[in-house]
Amino acid sequence: MGNFKGHALPGSMFLMVGLWWAGKSSFWYAARRKKSAGLLTSRAAQRRLEVIEGVTILSFSVIGMLAEQFAADGPQLHLYDYAEHQWDHLMNWQHATMYLFFGLAGGVSVAVHTTGSAPLALDRMLLGVAFFTEGFLFLYHLHGRAMLDIHIHQLLLYAIFGGAATAFLEVFHRGNVLLELLRASFCLLQGSWFWQIAFVLYPPSGVAEWDLKDHSNMMFITTCYCWHFAFSLLTVTVVYCTACWVVHSKLKRTPSMEMGLLKTTDKEQESEDEI
Amino acid sequence: MGNFKGHALPGSMFLMVGLWWAGKSSFWYAARRKKSAGLLTSRAAQRRLEVIEGVTILSFSVIGMLAEQFAADGPQLHLYDYAEHQWDHLMNWQHATMYLFFGLAGGVSVAVHTTGSAPLALDRMLLGVAFFTEGFLFLYHLHGRAMLDIHIHQLLLYAIFGGAATAFLEVFHRGNVLLELLRASFCLLQGSWFWQIAFVLYPPSGVAEWDLKDHSNMMFITTCYCWHFAFSLLTVTVVYCTACWVVHSKLKRTPSMEMGLLKTTDKEQESEDEI
Amino acid sequence: MGNFKGHALPGSMFLMVGLWWAGKSSFWYAARRKKSAGLLTSRAAQRRLEVIEGVTILSFSVIGMLAEQFAADGPQLHLYDYAEHQWDHLMNWQHATMYLFFGLAGGVSVAVHTTGSAPLALDRMLLGVAFFTEGFLFLYHLHGRAMLDIHIHQLLLYAIFGGAATAFLEVFHRGNVLLELLRASFCLLQGSWFWQIAFVLYPPSGVAEWDLKDHSNMMFITTCYCWHFAFSLLTVTVVYCTACWVVHSKLKRTPSMEMGLLKTTDKEQESEDEI
Amino acid sequence: MGNFKGHALPGSMFLMVGLWWAGKSSFWYAARRKKSAGLLTSRAAQRRLEVIEGVTILSFSVIGMLAEQFAADGPQLHLYDYAEHQWDHLMNWQHATMYLFFGLAGGVSVAVHTTGSAPLALDRMLLGVAFFTEGFLFLYHLHGRAMLDIHIHQLLLYAIFGGAATAFLEVFHRGNVLLELLRASFCLLQGSWFWQIAFVLYPPSGVAEWDLKDHSNMMFITTCYCWHFAFSLLTVTVVYCTACWVVHSKLKRTPSMEMGLLKTTDKEQESEDEI
Repeated sequence: MGNFKGHALPGSMFLMVGLWWAGKSSFWYAARRKKSAGLLTSRAAQRRLEVIEGVTILSFSVIGMLAEQFAADGPQLHLYDYAEHQWDHLMNWQHATMYLFFGLAGGVSVAVHTTGSAPLALDRMLLGVAFFTEGFLFLYHLHGRAMLDIHIHQLLLYAIFGGAATAFLEVFHRGNVLLELLRASFCLLQGSWFWQIAFVLYPPSGVAEWDLKDHSNMMFITTCYCWHFAFSLLTVTVVYCTACWVVHSKLKRTPSMEMGLLKTTDKEQESEDEI
Repeated sequence: MGNFKGHALPGSMFLMVGLWWAGKSSFWYAARRKKSAGLLTSRAAQRRLEVIEGVTILSFSVIGMLAEQFAADGPQLHLYDYAEHQWDHLMNWQHATMYLFFGLAGGVSVAVHTTGSAPLALDRMLLGVAFFTEGFLFLYHLHGRAMLDIHIHQLLLYAIFGGAATAFLEVFHRGNVLLELLRASFCLLQGSWFWQIAFVLYPPSGVAEWDLKDHSNMMFITTCYCWHFAFSLLTVTVVYCTACWVVHSKLKRTPSMEMGLLKTTDKEQESEDEI
Repeated sequence: MGNFKGHALPGSMFLMVGLWWAGKSSFWYAARRKKSAGLLTSRAAQRRLEVIEGVTILSFSVIGMLAEQFAADGPQLHLYDYAEHQWDHLMNWQHATMYLFFGLAGGVSVAVHTTGSAPLALDRMLLGVAFFTEGFLFLYHLHGRAMLDIHIHQLLLYAIFGGAATAFLEVFHRGNVLLELLRASFCLLQGSWFWQIAFVLYPPSGVAEWDLKDHSNMMFITTCYCWHFAFSLLTVTVVYCTACWVVHSKLKRTPSMEMGLLKTTDKEQESEDEI
Repeated sequence: MGNFKGHALPGSMFLMVGLWWAGKSSFWYAARRKKSAGLLTSRAAQRRLEVIEGVTILSFSVIGMLAEQFAADGPQLHLYDYAEHQWDHLMNWQHATMYLFFGLAGGVSVAVHTTGSAPLALDRMLLGVAFFTEGFLFLYHLHGRAMLDIHIHQLLLYAIFGGAATAFLEVFHRGNVLLELLRASFCLLQGSWFWQIAFVLYPPSGVAEWDLKDHSNMMFITTCYCWHFAFSLLTVTVVYCTACWVVHSKLKRTPSMEMGLLKTTDKEQESEDEI
């Protein structure tokens, strides 16, 4: 899918997922701190939300896989072109493989949160595996391209492997809001960077094309990547502040009487051991 | 052992070990959760099983070492060929060295679980060392081969070092079922990839040979590696579900009276600290 | 800012920050151990100090950004030179980006310690991100320079990424005085190395210039880097001993009566589990 | 010190240190398990032993530094040869720098264990720093040598950085006997490998010289490195078993009456959480 749409589409998807994760984590963390545990923050509600998230990821992955296979220029499940003695649409197969792992992560997340017969951390481990596989395929994806093309995709790898590392760390530090927000930031970074790639490599008509061999372009792109990261951090901050404000203003309207019924043995999960 | 059999043999062994590990971990975890602790899940039974596993690994390693040395084309313990002033069958010596470390891991595991005079985590540390050494020898094993040959062996390194890293993590997080299943997945991946290497580099007669310098072959092999990983993850999932189902159906037949005798102070080992 | 001043300025800043961190951590740790908790070591006083530190970092970052943009040779917020069809003062934009992330870290630190509505560890995570971004930009900053120029900047990366790694570890091990002092050491190392770079690449007039292609110069610079590290470790040691001595001598003058009022449930944060 | 003695000397030193560490850790661990805590395993005795170890390391480092500087071919504290406009005996300065960091680690260890005014883990952190610096200097030490010379020194780096990583891990997992024994193994490996380097690069007269450009030599050396590792692991095992046996046989002679006086709340430090 070496075209504008092929980068803008995953970009939009990752942006939405990143926003969703930032919102979910912030809201739950704020609710937990304020102990305004209402309907939304109960364990059952959380579980239901996780299931919905898993189903959504699973459906989008299946749709993505089908689109890659049966779209106009897809391989339609043919792997080898016997007539021309070459592999058939390897790019599409690679993208379908990426979707496959995200689908696996989504499916397992649904299974974990509905049946409860597997350790909870499994959903994060498979999310980490999905991110890692995406990065792994991109890593061996860049042979023989122009310098800037390679560099701009390599920068993407930082966001992808950053997301994978964060998800793996969450296996051992589940519920740590900092890791969850960091993961959301990396996801947003990945999404906005896909858009940047689309604009750099396939500029809309009317805009001057980029010189893919100019070194100063490489230096600018590197700086630009940092701006995207700053932007994603700021977005997560804004989402977090909004969630805090919503929970806080909602709390005021809750009668204090109800508060006595809440358990106070809530163990705070983040490592907040100040001296 | 640059032939079909030389890759198919270790492949089969790693596949069996991976299946065994997946089954063992799944069954113990399921039994622990259901508290249906019967004969099989008692500490003594576990210890006996670990000893059997260790003895098996040790015996296969010794057989492997002897086979490498005394098979038809083996060096028969001669290290240096003084007639021709060159090293004698270095490949066989390298393979024997790999077996040596797995034998060490097996032997230490037996010692740890029979005498109990060493920390339990030692078996995992030496397993990690054995995997690391295997990867280390493969890393410096590939000088001057064709592009696809190098690439296909490098992919193998991901599975090997992944297994080593997981085993080392288990030293500090012993009993974490996720790590155990991940280790089983890496082991299955390694096994099935050995078979893939055998079919790619030494295709059975009647099948067209692979062009070892074609870049699209490299891209396909990379994608194919991900499919192997997905396959190994699915296999582990199937094994885990079977173990859960077996334990669950067995539990129903157990009279509930017995349950009261079980200790309830079972600390669950996995990091399942949901909020 | 490829000149003497451009390296001496950040060098001085990092030296001051390193000294400040070493002093702060040492003093708090010594006070905590001696339980001579007076006005300075109360939680409120600590919080106030953190806020002042955050405000200082934030202000210097804003000043730095403005200086990079509006100094004599700055881009004055112009990013692209349409006349000459090239990027405008990319170096200044890169340096401004570095300041941006330190400003972000400072701002977030202020927000965390004034409002208390975010997890405390957030300040260390963003400090880690700021160091990482600085190193990341330096990493892609060195294209086409002379051998010694590249090597001397690469050595700088060890100090920068060391600082980033230490800050990230502090997210999970907050209050560990060893990590705090290690971070201070890396910061001092970075500062003194910036001065070394200034003297090597832009020697003051009257001093012989360095041969940037001589290999023995490279070997000397590597050794010299280790001396800088030893020097920074010694500086931190001296600061630590001074802090201990100050706290100790102050404690003697405190009447012992007061001591009974201090809580004894102080959990010691460092991992001091000797056998 | 590019000669036989220059590699055999540090080799012998590391071998002795490795044996000492293996013995110390094994003995303490065995005594702790058997609860035969007599004079040797009391906290005061341990502290005294650590101080002696620190003083020994410090003295050897000072001697090493003086030897490097004032031996027949040493620089005698001259850093720059103004007559010939080149650096003076850079190799000796590098080796002296390595000794400097080990001396620092020894000195700090003494200070930590005598005054007790610094966190205990500091001794391991500086040990890790000393190993890391040694590896760091070797890393940039190999420019322009023959292939086998570079390879054989690169293999050494695995042992050095392995030791550094283990020491750093001990900062957070102090008293974990597995890490202590692993550190001892890496130290033994380093020592025996130094001897191997001496024999390969500077063979004693009468022995055929090695062809430094032959690839099969490289393959053999890699395999040989694994044998050294297996040998060091076996040595540590033998030392550990001896220590266990000594403690066990000593325990039998202790009257059982005394045992009741021992505290049973001894927390075992290793992560031995079997299910």
